[in-house]
Amino acid sequence: MRCTCSISVAAALVVGVSAQTFRRLGACPTLGCVFPPDQADFLAGQYFDIRLEVHQPTNGSEFIGLPLDERFTFTVAKKGGAAKAATEYFKLEEPKVEKWNFTYYEDLFARDAKKPSLVNVAAKAYRRVALYEPGEYVATLSYNNGSKTEATWLVRDLAEERKAKNIIFFIGDGMTTNMITAARLIGHKSINGKYQTTMAMDKFPVLGHQMTHSIDSFITDSANSAAALNTGHKSTVNCLNVYADSSPNAFDDPKVETIAEMFHRLTGGHIGIVSTAYIADATPAALVAHTRARSQYGAIVDTFLNGVQNYTWTKVPIDVIFGGGAEQFYPPSLGGVTYQGKDYYAEFAKQSYQIIQNRTALLAAKATEKTLGIFTTSNMAKWLDRNVYRQNLNQSLSPTGDKKPALDQPGLKEMTLKAIDILQARSGEQGYLLMSEAASIDKMMHALDYDRALGELLELDDTIKATIAHLNSTNTLKETLILVTADHGHGFDVMGSVDTQYLAAQNVDRKKRDAVGTYEQSGLSQYINTGNLSYTDSNFPSNWDPRYTLFQGLMADPDRRENWSVHKSGPRTPAKAANGTNDYYANPSDGAGGILLNGTLPVENDQGVHSLTDVPVFAMGPCQEFFGGVYNSPDIFFGMAKCFGLARGSP
Amino acid sequence: MRCTCSISVAAALVVGVSAQTFRRLGACPTLGCVFPPDQADFLAGQYFDIRLEVHQPTNGSEFIGLPLDERFTFTVAKKGGAAKAATEYFKLEEPKVEKWNFTYYEDLFARDAKKPSLVNVAAKAYRRVALYEPGEYVATLSYNNGSKTEATWLVRDLAEERKAKNIIFFIGDGMTTNMITAARLIGHKSINGKYQTTMAMDKFPVLGHQMTHSIDSFITDSANSAAALNTGHKSTVNCLNVYADSSPNAFDDPKVETIAEMFHRLTGGHIGIVSTAYIADATPAALVAHTRARSQYGAIVDTFLNGVQNYTWTKVPIDVIFGGGAEQFYPPSLGGVTYQGKDYYAEFAKQSYQIIQNRTALLAAKATEKTLGIFTTSNMAKWLDRNVYRQNLNQSLSPTGDKKPALDQPGLKEMTLKAIDILQARSGEQGYLLMSEAASIDKMMHALDYDRALGELLELDDTIKATIAHLNSTNTLKETLILVTADHGHGFDVMGSVDTQYLAAQNVDRKKRDAVGTYEQSGLSQYINTGNLSYTDSNFPSNWDPRYTLFQGLMADPDRRENWSVHKSGPRTPAKAANGTNDYYANPSDGAGGILLNGTLPVENDQGVHSLTDVPVFAMGPCQEFFGGVYNSPDIFFGMAKCFGLARGSP
Repeated sequence: MRCTCSISVAAALVVGVSAQTFRRLGACPTLGCVFPPDQADFLAGQYFDIRLEVHQPTNGSEFIGLPLDERFTFTVAKKGGAAKAATEYFKLEEPKVEKWNFTYYEDLFARDAKKPSLVNVAAKAYRRVALYEPGEYVATLSYNNGSKTEATWLVRDLAEERKAKNIIFFIGDGMTTNMITAARLIGHKSINGKYQTTMAMDKFPVLGHQMTHSIDSFITDSANSAAALNTGHKSTVNCLNVYADSSPNAFDDPKVETIAEMFHRLTGGHIGIVSTAYIADATPAALVAHTRARSQYGAIVDTFLNGVQNYTWTKVPIDVIFGGGAEQFYPPSLGGVTYQGKDYYAEFAKQSYQIIQNRTALLAAKATEKTLGIFTTSNMAKWLDRNVYRQNLNQSLSPTGDKKPALDQPGLKEMTLKAIDILQARSGEQGYLLMSEAASIDKMMHALDYDRALGELLELDDTIKATIAHLNSTNTLKETLILVTADHGHGFDVMGSVDTQYLAAQNVDRKKRDAVGTYEQSGLSQYINTGNLSYTDSNFPSNWDPRYTLFQGLMADPDRRENWSVHKSGPRTPAKAANGTNDYYANPSDGAGGILLNGTLPVENDQGVHSLTDVPVFAMGPCQEFFGGVYNSPDIFFGMAKCFGLARGSP
Repeated sequence: MRCTCSISVAAALVVGVSAQTFRRLGACPTLGCVFPPDQADFLAGQYFDIRLEVHQPTNGSEFIGLPLDERFTFTVAKKGGAAKAATEYFKLEEPKVEKWNFTYYEDLFARDAKKPSLVNVAAKAYRRVALYEPGEYVATLSYNNGSKTEATWLVRDLAEERKAKNIIFFIGDGMTTNMITAARLIGHKSINGKYQTTMAMDKFPVLGHQMTHSIDSFITDSANSAAALNTGHKSTVNCLNVYADSSPNAFDDPKVETIAEMFHRLTGGHIGIVSTAYIADATPAALVAHTRARSQYGAIVDTFLNGVQNYTWTKVPIDVIFGGGAEQFYPPSLGGVTYQGKDYYAEFAKQSYQIIQNRTALLAAKATEKTLGIFTTSNMAKWLDRNVYRQNLNQSLSPTGDKKPALDQPGLKEMTLKAIDILQARSGEQGYLLMSEAASIDKMMHALDYDRALGELLELDDTIKATIAHLNSTNTLKETLILVTADHGHGFDVMGSVDTQYLAAQNVDRKKRDAVGTYEQSGLSQYINTGNLSYTDSNFPSNWDPRYTLFQGLMADPDRRENWSVHKSGPRTPAKAANGTNDYYANPSDGAGGILLNGTLPVENDQGVHSLTDVPVFAMGPCQEFFGGVYNSPDIFFGMAKCFGLARGSP
């Protein structure tokens, strides 16, 4: 969910440091760009925008000495059929040519030497078109007197039959198989190698793996990966349901219609969004937002309420919005950072939303009303702090903006179950799509706070278990597809145990390493076999602070000090920068008594990063069979769309 | 596959440093031990031994001041039925009481203080018994005047119907989902985020995850995990198809019958073993060996030929044995380390094995003969060295023991296809079980030699692809279950790319870290989009040494220097110890120009270690549906046994 380098959307020159070779523009290796690009797949009838760009590099290795071509042409052909001008094909007016320029660095040497390459651009956009007939298409951009960029597009088969009434789509942000294994170890008891209870996810009948890579880099962020899951189109880091063009405007990039938008437009289905992040964060935003800059939080909140403003597009009323991020709701007078300085609690109330701001109100909320629940400023409190180290809730994070603590926050389970009740009550025969995100698995892995991350994962699993029971009790389980997946991984694993008592008793780092027990010395989990903590929720550790902890971590880190003990005073801050710099070293007040470790990440990183690994997909219910085996992230979108019967052969 | 601390089997006192608390004996927390222990599952009719031990700690925290009880009793009852003495239940003579003692350390402080705890033991063993009736049993050891240790055993349901003629069981040793994702990235081309080809594994219809933990520690080695896969019984690190008792004898531990043994005993099915490791290594050994010490290589080779010698047990003729490890075959006069000093090439020849020692002979070998193929001393050459850096084959590793190089080594694919031909020709209607192991995924991950490890993984995938094609061409695909899985993981992932040119040009480690590109700077794989290497095999990198390499690694390491470039002069040696010590530091001649990184593992580690993560299972063919979802490693055994119809309700 973290954005490591958001683009500067207001600048006239966008420094597009994209791709390992710092390529000019993702998904456009040539000087003529077509978006959607070659190899894009579409659902029949899915709305999308087309963006064409012709680039004139004015210096650097791509300089070719031609003038900027503003007379480029563009045709579309069904494979084997005649190519037609896009205006004819889509029955549109010819759009105006737009012009801008941008700079980029060819590589790190150019960056260090401060020698950017400048590119002039001529561009056009065709807005809100669709392809209805399944099969292959060839889209051709002709430019620079005979150069061509061809894109092969595939419209997948029609699927008009609806097989599920509802879909509940759980996202464990950043969650990998490795983390699920670790969470099981600390939350479930085993005897002689046989677990006496297992994760709710473990019981799902169908397992898949999805590939999370971006269109133009093999490591994704959560915006781009959420866009792939929601639209079936992979894109570029920081993009929400658009392809990244090179223009400075963060809202003019070519959009693609999301599953939520199509589901509502075609069937009248109802939508709910639940997250433990600030609600404008990438994963919840990806249900309906369309921007090249995920950091446009205020505008994203406005999109939840009012839809896309700049262009004609599908508007989706959202029945339930639960999460954090009150700073995008309370007005600037209270310290908020809202779109156009408005009070978004008031804006939502004007449109008949029931507004709730704590757990008590959540539990009491009427199921028949559209409901906005914002429970804290910033991200929601972590399960570990809500349930074990409650003193850490004493921060000025009230969702009202009154600077009091947000002590009465619900968990993912309570939010999700209430969201289901509301959607159930309001959607009637039309059914619903609910996205529920355990956001802080990712956020706490970024912070190298493994215990809190695993606590969030166990809370997700507890939520899934409770959801299944709740659907069963309301007789709606059989008509509901439940999917659980992640948007990307972190390079995390557990390699053994740490005798924290022995570690603390040694004075030399090389001797401290002796506290690590691998193989047979790893022993058994002490998180569940010692201690006497108990909770209303089941299957969480009975001891978060045993003598023998997990020898766990990430593969790529900032400098840090590791003592492999729970961070009792709140989420971890592993690295700190010298005053006024971005030069991060191990935080001197973190990991007391631990081993000082040098990192491998560039020194401006204060936390861990995402990884490449395929992530698991668990499926249960109608269409579960669509989600077995190994596939690309867009296939999740196509599977959901097929299950809802959304591919349409005509407008 | 690596054994970090093998037990000293000849010593009168076994220092059992097992489990994170250095427990007395795995799977025996009380002073009365029953093996198989509580929670063991059995296939109906599966042979097993019972070991009982009563412990008398003479000092330390478990000292209780009672004399050693040699008059303990033991009963077995079907749940709800009457308890009978084991002699009556299994119709056996009462065995003699055995006695020994052993020492262990209670924790690391006791180890540092050299204060072991001494335990006297009285024990009995009931050999080669079986349970035929499905359901729960209670086994009860009574000792010390009223103390009881109860074990609940479960005999799973009968399954006498055979559903597959053959099973081919591929093991990618140490292979995780993360590694498969990385191998796909370097071996398969993608355009705009869509792979143009994918792994053979990616195309399997059914995906599962299996939990790899040991019975008494959460991190396993390859012996113990292979035993779980082959017998359905988890055990202790270093154990092959036995539960670990505390006796000094490595061959008297209680055995459990393997899938290969039952398949042959009950159906006359034929067995083949292929590995790129030395053939006495844990994974190939686990088809038929039974010992507490995987390091008994010579004896294991003898077991391949002559079966278990010390006790009455199932003997299995093995049709095909292909791998490395010639030092356990050529006699001591040539430098071999063989069982009883014999020449095992001669021993195998005496029993009518065709003996082959190079790729040429392999390809020419008759399919109708029992065949032993040993192609090198030690582990087989890696795919990367056989195919790209061939100069590294110039070592004195000839399988004959003549100290010449082993230049003509086959790959996993050639060995596997020939093994299938032999098994097919010899098994007739009885069918076969073939285990084929890509051993050096693990061995190269241990060495932090990521490129070689991924090369081995791609070779495994190429082998799977060729196997499917070969079975198809011989019309035997439909009658053959193909399983692909691993025995454990390593904490590996890919976090981005490294600009090796920039890294080499910087002089300071903290500046070198700038060469790492995460998220959008990770860019695209250059292993497949640059370079012009080609091979007879498909889907391998066209460039192993691109400018932009993978930013990859393990989470837990020895000290090392990382430059993230391919190791051209042979498998990597990341750490070296000061003369005569076990105190490992980064190898000064490794990773030139890279970043010096301190490790987290105890300093006597010269390489990486195994990890906790669940590993993937890919299934195709009859019974594929048994292997979807998430389950424990023993379920692989039970799935295969059910598919072969091996559970029997009577002797």
